[in-house]
Amino acid sequence: MVSKSMEELVSLCKRRGFIFQSNEIYGGVKGLYDFGPMGVELKNNLKQSWWKSMIYERDDIEGLDASILTGSDVLKYSGHEDTFSDPLVDCKSCKSRWRADQLDNHNCPNCKSKDLTEPRPFNLMFKTSIGPVDDGSSYVYLRPETAQQIFTNFKNVLDSTNRVLPFGIAQIGKAFRNEITPRNFIFRVREFEQMELEFFVEPGFDDKWHKYWVESRYNWWKKQGIDEKRLEIQDIKKDELSHYSKATVDIVYNFPHGKEELEGIANRTDFDLGSHTKNQQDFKISSNVMKNKTSTTKLAVQNLTNKNWFIPYVIEPSAGVERGVLALLNEAYKVDEKNSRTVLALKPHLSPIKAAVIPLKRNNEKLVNQAKIIKNNLQKIGLGRVMLENSGNIGKNYRRHDEVGTPLCVTVDFETLENNTITVRDRDTMQQKRLSSDELKNYYENYFE
Amino acid sequence: MVSKSMEELVSLCKRRGFIFQSNEIYGGVKGLYDFGPMGVELKNNLKQSWWKSMIYERDDIEGLDASILTGSDVLKYSGHEDTFSDPLVDCKSCKSRWRADQLDNHNCPNCKSKDLTEPRPFNLMFKTSIGPVDDGSSYVYLRPETAQQIFTNFKNVLDSTNRVLPFGIAQIGKAFRNEITPRNFIFRVREFEQMELEFFVEPGFDDKWHKYWVESRYNWWKKQGIDEKRLEIQDIKKDELSHYSKATVDIVYNFPHGKEELEGIANRTDFDLGSHTKNQQDFKISSNVMKNKTSTTKLAVQNLTNKNWFIPYVIEPSAGVERGVLALLNEAYKVDEKNSRTVLALKPHLSPIKAAVIPLKRNNEKLVNQAKIIKNNLQKIGLGRVMLENSGNIGKNYRRHDEVGTPLCVTVDFETLENNTITVRDRDTMQQKRLSSDELKNYYENYFE
Repeated sequence: MVSKSMEELVSLCKRRGFIFQSNEIYGGVKGLYDFGPMGVELKNNLKQSWWKSMIYERDDIEGLDASILTGSDVLKYSGHEDTFSDPLVDCKSCKSRWRADQLDNHNCPNCKSKDLTEPRPFNLMFKTSIGPVDDGSSYVYLRPETAQQIFTNFKNVLDSTNRVLPFGIAQIGKAFRNEITPRNFIFRVREFEQMELEFFVEPGFDDKWHKYWVESRYNWWKKQGIDEKRLEIQDIKKDELSHYSKATVDIVYNFPHGKEELEGIANRTDFDLGSHTKNQQDFKISSNVMKNKTSTTKLAVQNLTNKNWFIPYVIEPSAGVERGVLALLNEAYKVDEKNSRTVLALKPHLSPIKAAVIPLKRNNEKLVNQAKIIKNNLQKIGLGRVMLENSGNIGKNYRRHDEVGTPLCVTVDFETLENNTITVRDRDTMQQKRLSSDELKNYYENYFE
Repeated sequence: MVSKSMEELVSLCKRRGFIFQSNEIYGGVKGLYDFGPMGVELKNNLKQSWWKSMIYERDDIEGLDASILTGSDVLKYSGHEDTFSDPLVDCKSCKSRWRADQLDNHNCPNCKSKDLTEPRPFNLMFKTSIGPVDDGSSYVYLRPETAQQIFTNFKNVLDSTNRVLPFGIAQIGKAFRNEITPRNFIFRVREFEQMELEFFVEPGFDDKWHKYWVESRYNWWKKQGIDEKRLEIQDIKKDELSHYSKATVDIVYNFPHGKEELEGIANRTDFDLGSHTKNQQDFKISSNVMKNKTSTTKLAVQNLTNKNWFIPYVIEPSAGVERGVLALLNEAYKVDEKNSRTVLALKPHLSPIKAAVIPLKRNNEKLVNQAKIIKNNLQKIGLGRVMLENSGNIGKNYRRHDEVGTPLCVTVDFETLENNTITVRDRDTMQQKRLSSDELKNYYENYFE
């Protein structure tokens, strides 16, 4: 069971502290969202799960965290200055501006005038002046994707780690796009986070690795709790591919607003390193790159057998954090009418709160002290946030923690003070079990394994 | 022992993959840095240590992760639009621009002309157009601090968590300042991360909490490995305080370039919530706030005894992540001449790599397979990155891991294949110990406890 509508999710997210409209007290700014106390934990857990699977559990990927502000040369040679744009039309009558592909009947949606300009490209990158002089000569961009600074750091990473092909560089971080019409809650926004891997391989091995990463990423999303009933793998048709892409596969999820891309896995060939390398003429670059006389660095590796230098190919799995969060919230959302409760059945490793420890009576010193000890012991195990819930009313607390996806609730009652036992209540089965406090550590660790 | 100079640190950081100049292959952009494979782990470990100490190990703080792009109303009423500026002078002769306080003898440092303008305020905030129309009417700022969106979300967090005073909201995230002269490596930069807590208290309890947080934060930095010999607590003098601050204390560290602020702890009174609340006239706001008719939300709480609504006071411990990283690198940097090695004696919880597992012979299948099993077992314990180091030459690997601060190196040799024992080598003592592989898990867990 998933949510019936986006509205259900938006409402839960606000009520329970997952996601708020940004700048809300001043009327909000479109396409910007803030993650509240529960949202920040969910988002961090998702990012950590990705980082672990990419860097910690493998032996062929390094991490990176590059700056958001990006020099114009980087985004010139990447092609973004020229081509990262949407076609817009202006209404000559009411001066409003629209995306060309969203105009039905060639009318202005605002004033219904037909007096419109021809579509003109509108660059989606945010630009800002840098340095003391604001005369338009010194500017940087807010990166529209995290990928480019992975490419520009290729040599730095190689030199500091002694990596050989195949290997990857992974990065999680913010990216910014001045979307003309942000929409569908956190799906299409102006500020978002990406989880991007650039995996460098020898040409000839790229098809194999592309296939490998499609499978690997699909399985990863399933492990995060997405049912394959709502996942699809779509090959992007040849005539819809970016000019540098040899093949792109989208992992598509059935969002509340329709089927859309959750992650894309592209075979970007030698376009990226070929675009940013110096001495382009020394390599047989297969893709169509802009002439680059500015780069100071050779972004190539040597074939150890024939000693030839060549530009590696790149396989790029690129996922959106917010889209991931939205898909996971939707998957986890369940209305349990029989028990009149809403449950967020998140996978335990993603749950914002791992366990809530609840003294039966609020502000009862003995109960609260005992609860604090138990909370601290669970917290020390180090699996994520454990919460002391000192607000009385056990039933209400259970409901509240069902809604934020807390897998376990531990209740401390007067029996605890007598015989050192507590009850553990399971989010999914709603069953309660009486355990000795000493058994709790094992129970907790086993649950999360 | 600390580093002899900033140059030593910069060189290590580049060589070993901690920190690179951003946009380096295109000549670099001043004041921007990228964190490499080791840097990203160190930085993440520091941030996690802060997050744990603020949110997980306490019961009175909630987390937040708000957007970087910030509406102009937020930064108007916070006072940043009017006052977040440095005084600059222009040289009329060569058109260069300078910070007024950096001009000796009222000469242009570039052309030595004395024909300079009067100092004029230069706002340090980055501004960018948002939405499709770029006529200057729609713009947002890159937040100059993370704090403001904590204040604007005050009510959202209250409503979704049922908190009562005293409680805090903590946030880690990027902030941006268009520094005129970025300098001292990652100390004064244009893009950086902050770890900020806004702790809300009832007026009258603010002095006590301010003192509490100064102590707490000082002790936290010591626990991260900073020797108190190089830490100082400085009370900012009354006449140097921001107009809204009742008291500010700086935790100052003796950086390679001199003594400078590592963290500031300010008693900001009711200035922040008072500035952003609606119906200001309904409260006795003690600080001098701008009249606000735009805010839609009351940022106040009710005294449960006398039922009066009031604006909470705020205590703000605000720390810089990059400054923290720089201080920690400096503290950890040791040249061990006797053993001709450089060691980064980081506290184990901050080390980028927790353990390196090294097969004695590179690409020897049996040794490498055994090393992989051991690496995976240690990795599963979940304390951070464990690395398989398949590059041969044990001595070189030890030196390399000393330099990045890896506390433990585990060597897999031919004896391992016979009797399942490995050697563990300690970074600090350089002592090696032969253990059975089965004992390793315990040894590792105990080491990090």
